[in-house]
Amino acid sequence: MSTGGDALLKEELDIVIPTIRNLDFLEMWRPFLQPYHLIIVQDGDPSKVIKVPDGFDYELYNRNDINRLLGPRASCISFKDSACRCFGYMVSKKKYIFTIDDDCFVAKDPSGEKINALAQHIKNLLSPSTPFFFNTLYDPYREGADFVRGYPFSLREGVATAVSHGLWLNIPDYDAPTQLVKPLERNTRFVDAVLTIPKGTLFPMCGMNLAFNRELIGPAMYFGLMGDGQPIGRYDDMWAGWCVKVICDHLGLGVKTGLPYIWHSKASNPFVNLKKEYKGIFWQEEIIPFFQSATLPKDCTTVQKCYMELSKQVKDKLGKVDPYFSKLAEAMVTWIEAWDELNPSAQAGVAAANGPVKGK
Amino acid sequence: MSTGGDALLKEELDIVIPTIRNLDFLEMWRPFLQPYHLIIVQDGDPSKVIKVPDGFDYELYNRNDINRLLGPRASCISFKDSACRCFGYMVSKKKYIFTIDDDCFVAKDPSGEKINALAQHIKNLLSPSTPFFFNTLYDPYREGADFVRGYPFSLREGVATAVSHGLWLNIPDYDAPTQLVKPLERNTRFVDAVLTIPKGTLFPMCGMNLAFNRELIGPAMYFGLMGDGQPIGRYDDMWAGWCVKVICDHLGLGVKTGLPYIWHSKASNPFVNLKKEYKGIFWQEEIIPFFQSATLPKDCTTVQKCYMELSKQVKDKLGKVDPYFSKLAEAMVTWIEAWDELNPSAQAGVAAANGPVKGK
Repeated sequence: MSTGGDALLKEELDIVIPTIRNLDFLEMWRPFLQPYHLIIVQDGDPSKVIKVPDGFDYELYNRNDINRLLGPRASCISFKDSACRCFGYMVSKKKYIFTIDDDCFVAKDPSGEKINALAQHIKNLLSPSTPFFFNTLYDPYREGADFVRGYPFSLREGVATAVSHGLWLNIPDYDAPTQLVKPLERNTRFVDAVLTIPKGTLFPMCGMNLAFNRELIGPAMYFGLMGDGQPIGRYDDMWAGWCVKVICDHLGLGVKTGLPYIWHSKASNPFVNLKKEYKGIFWQEEIIPFFQSATLPKDCTTVQKCYMELSKQVKDKLGKVDPYFSKLAEAMVTWIEAWDELNPSAQAGVAAANGPVKGK
Repeated sequence: MSTGGDALLKEELDIVIPTIRNLDFLEMWRPFLQPYHLIIVQDGDPSKVIKVPDGFDYELYNRNDINRLLGPRASCISFKDSACRCFGYMVSKKKYIFTIDDDCFVAKDPSGEKINALAQHIKNLLSPSTPFFFNTLYDPYREGADFVRGYPFSLREGVATAVSHGLWLNIPDYDAPTQLVKPLERNTRFVDAVLTIPKGTLFPMCGMNLAFNRELIGPAMYFGLMGDGQPIGRYDDMWAGWCVKVICDHLGLGVKTGLPYIWHSKASNPFVNLKKEYKGIFWQEEIIPFFQSATLPKDCTTVQKCYMELSKQVKDKLGKVDPYFSKLAEAMVTWIEAWDELNPSAQAGVAAANGPVKGK
């Protein structure tokens, strides 16, 4: 196992971790993740000191840092919810992001080998996607696979991949009702596949084990308003996934799901989850048809333009479902303003200059 | 292994096999397939005697039988091409069809167990499909799996499954150009998943290892005009798959792909294949956009009505690509007429009364 110089995309990728506790889980990931730079987003009490294992290169932002860096626009970053992780996407200056939860451990493949999740995400992101036609042998770019008979040759170049969505062994990503009904269910099935989610199809994007091309889709990776002061939680990554998929479909970008697996160690409390989720369980019945029928005009040629247009449609159509969505639509605009402020084109290092806690 | 009474759907399923040779391959399948009734469609010279291993219950149709049963409408059934198999779908009186090529052997799963492909197809057909939203843990109805967080509850009942598309270990189903470029490529990856192909997404349906609900989708399973006297071959199953998918999407039916695997023993000759395919390689670039944008009017409430409407659109739009498609559009109409003649509602056994060769 390598810990050093041959780490893929070492200079072009940041790892974003939202947390409220010491990052002991990184010990297990050391062989795979130590070469990379970490952006830690500390949730909750900013006076708490988060310990990061020695040897990791990191910057850490707590709520005070977020408020200082964004000023009044800090309102768009959730508090007391892992949705705060998207702040890390905004302050990164790298091309790629891998985000992982601190209860995710290294999984093993069926042969017993430890899975380098990040290496697989990078493979997924660096090879094209095929959103316009389904390949029955899954990822046609993988070694030992190809396009099958009947696959149009004009579509075999594929399109750029914006998102790589990884999965979880052990504790599956279930909602509270399913957790309550199946408290003992564990995911033991290792499905050795990566596939492109077809154009026009929405999916439930989980933020636990996720990588994306920040240059291609970053401004759409907003995790919404969740947690403290909000009527809902645990829909942060779902919201981002729905927005991202609609925009990827519009811009002709690819979204992949499947490998890599991580080992999800601990089920969250289903009673607490139910409290956070229950409005979402109603609302998603209206949100999903909204996103399924959402179309973006042709002049939306950048992610920012697409996202601003989507925020208008959210206000107009979902605002009727609950006033929360009007607030969320405004936060979507604030998010883009903050993103653009921290990421002026062809200029980097704005956030870094403001000095978060740095490690190593 | 069971050979008898507990065979699932024994009275409700026919196995359709197109062939030009003795069916020795059935020996290997005996433990799984012997309880079922076979419909053998003999291609090529009708005077040749096809040997079927002892103990199998079958009926066999050669070209003379097809001509006698269909009269002038026999023109819609291809000759010297495995597309002739669809005649078997038409004469069956069962609810389900499993069709398999005679060069497909029993595959083994990673634990070394022989795979009962038909049992898996039946599982796929008897459990619902989920075409409206993607489930990242694949088939949510499978043991040990469920719908993940963010999956709308209103969609969790799923829809009826019309088609189960199985895959192939060893020789992958590649087109001639890919065969020529990668003569040694073998599919060794066992992907332990079944998934619904989302609504609005087309796929390359291979007829080698395929099962379907004849009551739900049978009249759309026409394998077109291929082989003798036609300008094209090896697009029979593709054609059926595109028509079937458009109609399933319109009628709200599901199409699944993935498990089961069969062992595909022998690659067909890529030079011969290229000759059969080359027009299809051009044409599919126009056929696929045609099917991707095809919509059916609301009053198309049966498979037959959908198929007749589709034949009109084929004539209007693809007729411009090549006169072949006008001929194909007419054959689509003839196919439906023949289907309806052999399958008058609430009346069975029409074909059987005309007496094909019977075995056992």
